[in-house]
Amino acid sequence: MTLKAENIKDDAVFQAAGGGGVVERLIARVPLFANAAPGFLEALYKNARSKNYGKSHVLLLHGDKAEKFFLIRKGWVKLFRETIDGSQAVVDILTAGHVFGEAGMFEHDGYPYSAEIVEAAEIIALPLDVLDKEVADNPKMAYDMLASMTRHRRLQDREIEHRAIQNAPQRIGCFLLRLVQPVASGPVSVNLPYDKMLVAARLGMQPETFSRALSRLRNDLDITIRGATIEIDDVSALSDYVCGACSAMFPCSDLKSCDK
Amino acid sequence: MTLKAENIKDDAVFQAAGGGGVVERLIARVPLFANAAPGFLEALYKNARSKNYGKSHVLLLHGDKAEKFFLIRKGWVKLFRETIDGSQAVVDILTAGHVFGEAGMFEHDGYPYSAEIVEAAEIIALPLDVLDKEVADNPKMAYDMLASMTRHRRLQDREIEHRAIQNAPQRIGCFLLRLVQPVASGPVSVNLPYDKMLVAARLGMQPETFSRALSRLRNDLDITIRGATIEIDDVSALSDYVCGACSAMFPCSDLKSCDK
Repeated sequence: MTLKAENIKDDAVFQAAGGGGVVERLIARVPLFANAAPGFLEALYKNARSKNYGKSHVLLLHGDKAEKFFLIRKGWVKLFRETIDGSQAVVDILTAGHVFGEAGMFEHDGYPYSAEIVEAAEIIALPLDVLDKEVADNPKMAYDMLASMTRHRRLQDREIEHRAIQNAPQRIGCFLLRLVQPVASGPVSVNLPYDKMLVAARLGMQPETFSRALSRLRNDLDITIRGATIEIDDVSALSDYVCGACSAMFPCSDLKSCDK
Repeated sequence: MTLKAENIKDDAVFQAAGGGGVVERLIARVPLFANAAPGFLEALYKNARSKNYGKSHVLLLHGDKAEKFFLIRKGWVKLFRETIDGSQAVVDILTAGHVFGEAGMFEHDGYPYSAEIVEAAEIIALPLDVLDKEVADNPKMAYDMLASMTRHRRLQDREIEHRAIQNAPQRIGCFLLRLVQPVASGPVSVNLPYDKMLVAARLGMQPETFSRALSRLRNDLDITIRGATIEIDDVSALSDYVCGACSAMFPCSDLKSCDK
């Protein structure tokens, strides 16, 4: 499969983001920028370019020279890598308020993943050199970024742990629990944030493994699935089922800042 | 299983590390400290405490208040977490020159893992508040730490990818390839760095899964195993077998700085 990232280096096709101030407010709200110097935010505003993309558009490719980073205004973006054999490994699936591509700043080999729109999205492209300079000059900003990366590392460690220890129904259950928390007991209804097959890919499962595991989860617990809506009869029964095979306690508040 | 970290908060039992200058030279060689201020290194030297530990000693516990970080002078250390059900997830296995426990700096909930000596070790304990201050005050140091964490993140992403895409023999093969690189072809002989069952745990495999996978790897390729020594008849045949199911090319030079 050959992917094209047509627009990524073509600033002319981006709509200038200035004017209304909505983009400015969105940028200012990024937790990572809480301690940034005012001049940094100004430089970002001036160079921000917002653009709408349809589903399946490939925004950047693994290995592309990293010149921009991105803030999602709306929609969903899949970060992924492809193996030589053509399999796809999903790194993350992100939505509004999330930043991606910033890791390219420290990489000699370009972006460490590809990014594809999985649900119609508005994406704000921002200059990576401005972020790089701020991180190099502003110790508070670097410190905040380190703290943010530490939280991300905790999330990755948990993911690696679960792939070794939890079975497939437990891993789907864990995905559902993160959607419903902070609700910790009683009945709850939750909508899957994206397509079931994308959930399977996010969890690193083959579609057939995912379907079998979802059936087993439904049989083992009082869970009803209607399209994208999942009704859980008792969240504490689900956490009992899942969280014995985890090194953290539910609700897993320590991951909250990573999930969002 | 109840673990005890008896000595961790008892400085009196550490042998003072000053004098010979060996510990100082070891600390000065840590890549992370390349851009540290001289005063920082002095403060570390002054407070460094070196101590020998036997196998199975638990050095720190997941959730312990993080007051020190550690540099391994010799031996092997396993970082791990335990689930409520008593399973163990291995986070990493580290040896001479590696630093651990520093992640506790950004954590409100103490160390994010437990640490156990798996092969008789000499460990240098260092004060975490000195590192914390240097990272907060010295932008170059913070920047270097960010770059180091980015490399670690790449390693974790690769691990998550492999757990989704590679089969068990391929994952063992990948472990072997990282031991033999930069050798990329021809015959090579390599010693496992630690016990086979620890390799299984590092790869997140049950012992029986690991044994079956190792047999299959031996059957599929010209590989001979004599105790801890593994003879690979042709490294390029092994990389063909493994690296089609990976998003990177062999030798995976991008991971080198993470492995060591």
